[in-house]
Amino acid sequence: MARFIKTKKEFIGSSPDGMTFHGERKSEHVRISVMDYDKDNLTETEVGSIAETLKYAETNTTTWLNIDGLHDAQIMKEISEGFNLSPLIISDILETNSRPKIHEYNDCIYISVKMLQYNEKKHHSTSENLVMIIKKNILISFQERVGDVFNPVRERLRSNRKRFRTAGTDYLAYALLDTIIDNYIYIISLLGEKIENLDKILIDKANDGMLQEISEYKGEIIYMSKIIKPCRELITSLEHIDSDLVHESMQVHLKGLRSNVELANETVEDYREILSDLLSVFHTVMSDKLNDILKTLTIFSVIFIPITFIVGVYGTNFDFMPVLHWRYGYLAMWIMMIVIAISMVIHFKRKKWL
Amino acid sequence: MARFIKTKKEFIGSSPDGMTFHGERKSEHVRISVMDYDKDNLTETEVGSIAETLKYAETNTTTWLNIDGLHDAQIMKEISEGFNLSPLIISDILETNSRPKIHEYNDCIYISVKMLQYNEKKHHSTSENLVMIIKKNILISFQERVGDVFNPVRERLRSNRKRFRTAGTDYLAYALLDTIIDNYIYIISLLGEKIENLDKILIDKANDGMLQEISEYKGEIIYMSKIIKPCRELITSLEHIDSDLVHESMQVHLKGLRSNVELANETVEDYREILSDLLSVFHTVMSDKLNDILKTLTIFSVIFIPITFIVGVYGTNFDFMPVLHWRYGYLAMWIMMIVIAISMVIHFKRKKWL
Amino acid sequence: MARFIKTKKEFIGSSPDGMTFHGERKSEHVRISVMDYDKDNLTETEVGSIAETLKYAETNTTTWLNIDGLHDAQIMKEISEGFNLSPLIISDILETNSRPKIHEYNDCIYISVKMLQYNEKKHHSTSENLVMIIKKNILISFQERVGDVFNPVRERLRSNRKRFRTAGTDYLAYALLDTIIDNYIYIISLLGEKIENLDKILIDKANDGMLQEISEYKGEIIYMSKIIKPCRELITSLEHIDSDLVHESMQVHLKGLRSNVELANETVEDYREILSDLLSVFHTVMSDKLNDILKTLTIFSVIFIPITFIVGVYGTNFDFMPVLHWRYGYLAMWIMMIVIAISMVIHFKRKKWL
Amino acid sequence: MARFIKTKKEFIGSSPDGMTFHGERKSEHVRISVMDYDKDNLTETEVGSIAETLKYAETNTTTWLNIDGLHDAQIMKEISEGFNLSPLIISDILETNSRPKIHEYNDCIYISVKMLQYNEKKHHSTSENLVMIIKKNILISFQERVGDVFNPVRERLRSNRKRFRTAGTDYLAYALLDTIIDNYIYIISLLGEKIENLDKILIDKANDGMLQEISEYKGEIIYMSKIIKPCRELITSLEHIDSDLVHESMQVHLKGLRSNVELANETVEDYREILSDLLSVFHTVMSDKLNDILKTLTIFSVIFIPITFIVGVYGTNFDFMPVLHWRYGYLAMWIMMIVIAISMVIHFKRKKWL
Amino acid sequence: MARFIKTKKEFIGSSPDGMTFHGERKSEHVRISVMDYDKDNLTETEVGSIAETLKYAETNTTTWLNIDGLHDAQIMKEISEGFNLSPLIISDILETNSRPKIHEYNDCIYISVKMLQYNEKKHHSTSENLVMIIKKNILISFQERVGDVFNPVRERLRSNRKRFRTAGTDYLAYALLDTIIDNYIYIISLLGEKIENLDKILIDKANDGMLQEISEYKGEIIYMSKIIKPCRELITSLEHIDSDLVHESMQVHLKGLRSNVELANETVEDYREILSDLLSVFHTVMSDKLNDILKTLTIFSVIFIPITFIVGVYGTNFDFMPVLHWRYGYLAMWIMMIVIAISMVIHFKRKKWL
Repeated sequence: MARFIKTKKEFIGSSPDGMTFHGERKSEHVRISVMDYDKDNLTETEVGSIAETLKYAETNTTTWLNIDGLHDAQIMKEISEGFNLSPLIISDILETNSRPKIHEYNDCIYISVKMLQYNEKKHHSTSENLVMIIKKNILISFQERVGDVFNPVRERLRSNRKRFRTAGTDYLAYALLDTIIDNYIYIISLLGEKIENLDKILIDKANDGMLQEISEYKGEIIYMSKIIKPCRELITSLEHIDSDLVHESMQVHLKGLRSNVELANETVEDYREILSDLLSVFHTVMSDKLNDILKTLTIFSVIFIPITFIVGVYGTNFDFMPVLHWRYGYLAMWIMMIVIAISMVIHFKRKKWL
Repeated sequence: MARFIKTKKEFIGSSPDGMTFHGERKSEHVRISVMDYDKDNLTETEVGSIAETLKYAETNTTTWLNIDGLHDAQIMKEISEGFNLSPLIISDILETNSRPKIHEYNDCIYISVKMLQYNEKKHHSTSENLVMIIKKNILISFQERVGDVFNPVRERLRSNRKRFRTAGTDYLAYALLDTIIDNYIYIISLLGEKIENLDKILIDKANDGMLQEISEYKGEIIYMSKIIKPCRELITSLEHIDSDLVHESMQVHLKGLRSNVELANETVEDYREILSDLLSVFHTVMSDKLNDILKTLTIFSVIFIPITFIVGVYGTNFDFMPVLHWRYGYLAMWIMMIVIAISMVIHFKRKKWL
Repeated sequence: MARFIKTKKEFIGSSPDGMTFHGERKSEHVRISVMDYDKDNLTETEVGSIAETLKYAETNTTTWLNIDGLHDAQIMKEISEGFNLSPLIISDILETNSRPKIHEYNDCIYISVKMLQYNEKKHHSTSENLVMIIKKNILISFQERVGDVFNPVRERLRSNRKRFRTAGTDYLAYALLDTIIDNYIYIISLLGEKIENLDKILIDKANDGMLQEISEYKGEIIYMSKIIKPCRELITSLEHIDSDLVHESMQVHLKGLRSNVELANETVEDYREILSDLLSVFHTVMSDKLNDILKTLTIFSVIFIPITFIVGVYGTNFDFMPVLHWRYGYLAMWIMMIVIAISMVIHFKRKKWL
Repeated sequence: MARFIKTKKEFIGSSPDGMTFHGERKSEHVRISVMDYDKDNLTETEVGSIAETLKYAETNTTTWLNIDGLHDAQIMKEISEGFNLSPLIISDILETNSRPKIHEYNDCIYISVKMLQYNEKKHHSTSENLVMIIKKNILISFQERVGDVFNPVRERLRSNRKRFRTAGTDYLAYALLDTIIDNYIYIISLLGEKIENLDKILIDKANDGMLQEISEYKGEIIYMSKIIKPCRELITSLEHIDSDLVHESMQVHLKGLRSNVELANETVEDYREILSDLLSVFHTVMSDKLNDILKTLTIFSVIFIPITFIVGVYGTNFDFMPVLHWRYGYLAMWIMMIVIAISMVIHFKRKKWL
Repeated sequence: MARFIKTKKEFIGSSPDGMTFHGERKSEHVRISVMDYDKDNLTETEVGSIAETLKYAETNTTTWLNIDGLHDAQIMKEISEGFNLSPLIISDILETNSRPKIHEYNDCIYISVKMLQYNEKKHHSTSENLVMIIKKNILISFQERVGDVFNPVRERLRSNRKRFRTAGTDYLAYALLDTIIDNYIYIISLLGEKIENLDKILIDKANDGMLQEISEYKGEIIYMSKIIKPCRELITSLEHIDSDLVHESMQVHLKGLRSNVELANETVEDYREILSDLLSVFHTVMSDKLNDILKTLTIFSVIFIPITFIVGVYGTNFDFMPVLHWRYGYLAMWIMMIVIAISMVIHFKRKKWL
């Protein structure tokens, strides 16, 4: 399957409000977890059905409802009905291969982004589509599988930070987006470290494997760019959104977020250019290296050519070659050959070919 | 004929309201099919003349009139008169090599796009110009030949989906455009899979045929880009159109459409860059591969050069060469040669040239 | 003289309202032709002096006054006075190396574009500066030499097309521009056909001449781009012009014109990229081709190296080489050499070097 | 010193209104010349001090005060006081390495551009910073050294051109800018001629010196681009300036100026791309040329390899080689060798390697 | 650690108002220095605690409070409380790896830029994050370590420049920014000098080390570009800021600043392109150089091939080779070989291969 874009023939032209999951099923069970909090209290539970969560929507407390796994059509239907989300929204949530986007509805804001997660053990990052539905007192997030990058946010909620606990769902959404973008930057910086290391050693220690490395990093960087660019548009839209759901006080946070995502984007562009240069330098270095070998070997051959010719001359069978009968003829031939060889070496050294 | 642009000398400067078909005739007969529907009923017929279709325009039901084949001037004239379309519009419909565009007239909206269709059996895609005329109760679509990608739309109409059946011609037009763009994405994803596979195996298994492949894919990608870019402009125009024919409720659908077409466009740009890199990597890999051959062969030659020189020396006809008369002379020569050869091999191995 | 930009030292800083012709003189005589028409009548004459044409400006009929040749200062002066055109306008007309542009004056619109004309016999296109002055009842066009691409327009006028005959000078100007842009597209499509053909055969049949071809096409394409880009700006300006001279009804025609010029522009950009790729592919193909030759030849040499060494060994003059005296020694040497040669060929075949 | 940007450590962070000259001193004496004119009279003098020029500022005539040389702090101080120019403006005038810019002050407009001057004898162009201060009745221009490109303007003033003499300082400024841009175009066209000539002969007559040429032209073109781009911004600003100092009637002239500077800019971009292509073509041509040499030589070697092997065979000392004792053995060997050589030549000719 | 982007895993998703320093600790002690001035007086002190500085904020004099070192949380807390700066601002100050940005708060303006400092002794430049908080009567600057580029500003303050002393904190901020940008330009010009020198000698004196140089300069230039681009946005924002803290009279200074930063930015882009060209030229030059060696050597070999063949012929042991028994046979062979060698040399000279 192509990594950059995925689609299946059977869903072409399907209804925009179909509630069937198109994507790859990434988890076994659907996990539903709730964090409900206000200034003083924090409830953290894992529930078995959507019905148990509906009560949270009616209280004045802020609720974060997190759904891990999208393949259960029944749960999706309950969410749609329970939280008054149109089938169109549900259909969008299920389309995990879509482009990151934001859409304002009457009573909610829809945000979808790609969440990147770096696996410290396996040394590679995985991507997952994340959807947030921001409503007045509740934020519903949809993930493709269990496991995310939001533990720092959970910790901050648990540690009774006044400001966080009293801020609404908009601040929660910001905190989640901020964590996602921090993870982008973290992954870029890990990749950047590898690229800059490669840059440092490339000229002196180029070897065939590096072509593979350069090529892989380029693929990673293009992929990062594909994720980050729409994210930048998204945050700009969020800044300019005119909705009661986003308070005026969020502006300064959103501005910081945009600054971060622009940093990420510019850095990705810089690495893209650096990798193009690396490919070009690699090509130059590899051909120089090989040419050095060929040069040395060719010079080696050239020294032997005239002296091999000389022994050929003395191997001819002419009757009248007085030197052959001279006592020191053989010795003289050797001297001549050594003189020729040495003067050629000196000549090449002078021309800096050796 | 050039694939990227086509024109014929004889039509240069011809009247912008001429009703002659300029293009290549792609089908034998003109097929006229009608789908007429409202909430409760659906009529699906194939008719022989335009006259039979005029009645549908006067009812309150929504009608989709589809014309396959553009070369019958008589039919075009009847459409022009029957549905009150100016000769200018007909002339535009017949210009199948034009750029995708949208134009708002007093009582209709004109949309032309390229329809791509993937042939599963022949493993290649064909392109066709599609024109839609959106009027109040009727949508007329013009195709160059029989066969299209709209079967999913027909299925949804037949299966009595309430929302589809009650929505007007604008929703029908959206559904058709959506299907077309889904097909773009499908074809890009098929192409993308091939490109990404090529990327994976290029470094290890490069062979001459891949140059052909890269070059072909590049051509395909540029062609896709040529089709998609104006399509993006078109949908943006459609979003901002101020016409009674497009209801407010279409906004959310059009926004989704634009997101899809942007996804398609960005992915095409990414593949363009990846293919440029592939070409560069291919060049590097092929020259490395060949240089490896040359290196091994040159080293091979170099080992034989000094030992061939030695046998030359002992082939000279000097009278005074005592070693020739020594009993173990011949053996000694062999030992010397073997020592030289082995030490050269060791030397090259140490320098990592072997 | 540079093709992309031309200027003469002696005209630097000259007055912007000088009435001297700066350009290359491209025709002998100045030809003045008139087409005067209304719904019912069409007069077509060739006159000897500007004085004879002044009467047409006063009637209600539409007049197309065409001047072929710019070097006659007297005629220019008469036009300036007769039709009330300021010296600035005349000076602009005479500056044939300027960038295509549009300028609105009080009582006229000034449009200059490059007219490309393909010579079917000589298989190349020539460029000429064309200026149109659009006034209320008269359109004056200035060409550098006799011969243009406007015969289809003249034919349409002669054939008593009602709409054309009753439309004003704005429609005439549109028809002329449309013909010019149709010619751009025609020339691009001819060039495109050559480029796409080259693309198809390049990998299999690359030869040295193709480098010349690619280089020439690139030059042509850059030149086309230079002509078309300002033309696109010009038509956008014309669309947004707020002048009584351009009727509201022209909008739909101008929109079609812009769509065409954008098609031309995008196609030129695509060919530009394709040609860059072709250059890169050509380089890869040519070096592959040559390397193949070198590879085969080197392998050929390598096979002979060890067997030539062997005959050298048996040419040494050692006294004690029993094999020389053996009856089948010579035969044995041949067998050994053949075995070595064949095993090397097999080895190379296995490694796919042959 | 870097050509593209120059600065000195000791002036970093210096006051923005310091009246010390930072640049390179390009002339010995400061020359002050005055042209004072109205419809009827023209006074042209060279004065020794600023005091003598102050009277011109009070008359109704238009005055052009030209200062050649910036290093005399006393003169600068007098100008600042005499013409009421703030130290900030003087400081800007003295900063000759700044980017071309325009700034509107209360009672004057400040314009700085780079003036390029082509030296016909030395075949290279020199650059100089030019500042114009446009006031109501006086235009003050500051040049780094004696000698400029403005003689055509002076000639037009002297020749009593009514329109020029009666127009104000804005027209004078326009005339100066026009002359400067005409010189840009002239220098680009000279450079362009060289580049296009190089393009024509590159493929057939490539030699090592051309790399130097391409590289030099590229440097020139980047330098031109650096000068022209801000100039384009400057003229656009001038067009949109809302100042009594620029009359409405200047619009048409400024539009022409912008068209010229855009022509210059686009042409420079085109040459930039052409030069990039030339570098690529040069690389391809040079390696082709060399490879041709290597090919011919390698083929030459290959023909001699088998026949040298044959003479080696007949040089072996086996006792039983009947052919050696055959009367026509030697002749037969020659025939065999000639046959082999000829058939190899034929084979290579067939494969088009020769 | 990657140079282009740095982040630590443990701070991902941390609170945006945390007051902990994330960066690398670059100095031992925190140094707090104060310059307090008005028209007549200037006080310059170094204090031990923030408490001592609070009094300055209440006077009408302008105060510049400079903090070197960010790691002391206690000091940061005191600043936050003493000068009424929200934790958010402090948190931003401590994030030294952020993108240069400007933010307007109710009673202050936050500006962060990168300060580059060239070390004359070590011949390299170091980067440091600088934050300025502009309040009504006080400007607080935060640096990562002791030592900055602001000595010229301090000198100007000390030398009792009336205008500087009477201008407010906005002028002080401008003077600091101006000095920083002057330093950018200075460092670019040093780098530019090296690049232009390299350009001049590259074709004639290319050696392997230059690849390293080109690659390093490219890295430096990309890094400069990364710093300067957001700086340009920042200054544009500052120009358009609508705040009482920035007086109208600053416009002209800010415009000059923007012109400088644009000059820096354009120059960096030009060097980027020049370096790309240099890499390409380097590749061409190096391969030409090596090919020259190979050419000469191959020609050398080729001359010896036929004459070595000839001596081989006369080394055969045929019984009937009359020439072997001829008195001048040996001499004749030498003459023949010399004739062949000379004619080959002449032939190659004619073909310009030598």
